[in-house]
Amino acid sequence: MIERIAILGTGLLGTSVGLALRAAGYRGSITGWNRSAEGGQAALAMGAIDAVAVNPLQAARESQVVMLSVPIYATLDLMEQLSSVLGPDQLVTDVGSTKAQIAEAAGRLFNAPERAAFLPGHPMAGKERGGAELGDANLFRGAVWLFTDDPASIRSANASALVNSWREWIVAIGARVIDIDAARHDEMVAWVSHLPQFTATALSALLEDEVGDAPELRDVGGRALREMTRLGASPYSMWRDIALTNTAAVERALFKLEQRLAYIRENLRTPGLREEFERANKFRKDF
Amino acid sequence: MIERIAILGTGLLGTSVGLALRAAGYRGSITGWNRSAEGGQAALAMGAIDAVAVNPLQAARESQVVMLSVPIYATLDLMEQLSSVLGPDQLVTDVGSTKAQIAEAAGRLFNAPERAAFLPGHPMAGKERGGAELGDANLFRGAVWLFTDDPASIRSANASALVNSWREWIVAIGARVIDIDAARHDEMVAWVSHLPQFTATALSALLEDEVGDAPELRDVGGRALREMTRLGASPYSMWRDIALTNTAAVERALFKLEQRLAYIRENLRTPGLREEFERANKFRKDF
Repeated sequence: MIERIAILGTGLLGTSVGLALRAAGYRGSITGWNRSAEGGQAALAMGAIDAVAVNPLQAARESQVVMLSVPIYATLDLMEQLSSVLGPDQLVTDVGSTKAQIAEAAGRLFNAPERAAFLPGHPMAGKERGGAELGDANLFRGAVWLFTDDPASIRSANASALVNSWREWIVAIGARVIDIDAARHDEMVAWVSHLPQFTATALSALLEDEVGDAPELRDVGGRALREMTRLGASPYSMWRDIALTNTAAVERALFKLEQRLAYIRENLRTPGLREEFERANKFRKDF
Repeated sequence: MIERIAILGTGLLGTSVGLALRAAGYRGSITGWNRSAEGGQAALAMGAIDAVAVNPLQAARESQVVMLSVPIYATLDLMEQLSSVLGPDQLVTDVGSTKAQIAEAAGRLFNAPERAAFLPGHPMAGKERGGAELGDANLFRGAVWLFTDDPASIRSANASALVNSWREWIVAIGARVIDIDAARHDEMVAWVSHLPQFTATALSALLEDEVGDAPELRDVGGRALREMTRLGASPYSMWRDIALTNTAAVERALFKLEQRLAYIRENLRTPGLREEFERANKFRKDF
């Protein structure tokens, strides 16, 4: 029943969703918009979208479902602009990596009588680099797609049907749909996504200073180093908004890791080290 | 020209070397010894060795090349025992992950007139778990095998020929041979191997305490988490000796990472975060 989709932001995620929808048999229209014209043209050339819009609000107005796949602050900006131009038979959804502020804006600007519906989403998929060129129809195969919908949302019957249909398309492109509370989402991703990212960034930046110029680096560095620093390639542009919208939880997680590293440092020669290894082993068994 | 090899310690590395030598066409004898009888039998059953010795010194005495593939302190113990029972036409080599103490013992106990030769080695290959059962003839394909030989070593012509021949076999099993000073080796591996390991251990242990029991863990944790905690499965038994024999360098590296994480924590809302990401990006480009 969804026949007109707008994808606002045709970077890695937006382009991948377009490609995945086509691969899963979606036959309606997909209009794309991108801040840089090149990104829109690349998504068009790859077949992820079938038209490039000049004006994102115009593209949204003409669609049933509008997917926002831009950084978090750009998502919040577009939400402000879209809420007044869309109506109760339209659905807006997003892919932002933090959800508390977006869920708050959704409650304030959408999901009310005469307003469009908003379904906050977060696909747990990506690559360490972005861009339409890396778009991949299989990016969401086996991945989890989280939704932090508010049970108090008020929606038209049409919008509710669009929500259900969008969730079905997400399953059709290979993802596993999970519902989670927005605040709990942000707390969990601070631990399992943001902390690993900032740790890889800190480790990579430190190694750049300490051994970045060492001629032996390529010889001595092996799989462990490559793996623990892969996320070091992640761009600041993707992570700035995450740092700004989940600051307290990330600060807490980083502080705890600093303490843990200090504990290991102080216990390299004591049985404390054994306990840390055993606890780490247990985590890997559980996970 | 090498026809009789003893592998003392048939864990993952010892077993893999035996399998790799056979796969590369080595036709001489390989006698194995292992502290636990099961490990020796497993290596025998896999074809990595063709006999299990009861006494490691006896097996060494009857061989031209003795490879020590046991933890570092066990290596140092065996070096003490072997130095008095072997002669100048025999070569001992090892696979220990830190080299300063082993190189010091090699200078004191070997590489002198009437003494056997010792060639300290360190293959940059492994798995996050050990054991003969995981032995793999291809473990060293494309890996670097470091040697920290002392140019001042005094060796018989026979022993020198054995050193050259052993280095050729290491190339034959697919590794790239690199020479490096022992002290520089330990400094470099503190950064590129030990720091990543202890970071993964700290991160995994922390996550076990914070979210190990969270029902959402499996849903929310993705590739980044899996990758950044894979080394959390490493056993304490492998790392204890590394922590004890490279303590100062590891302490220094851990302390610097703590500072780096604190800097990121304090700069989640400042341009300092951008600089850290850019530095990390640069490391990944260089490496």
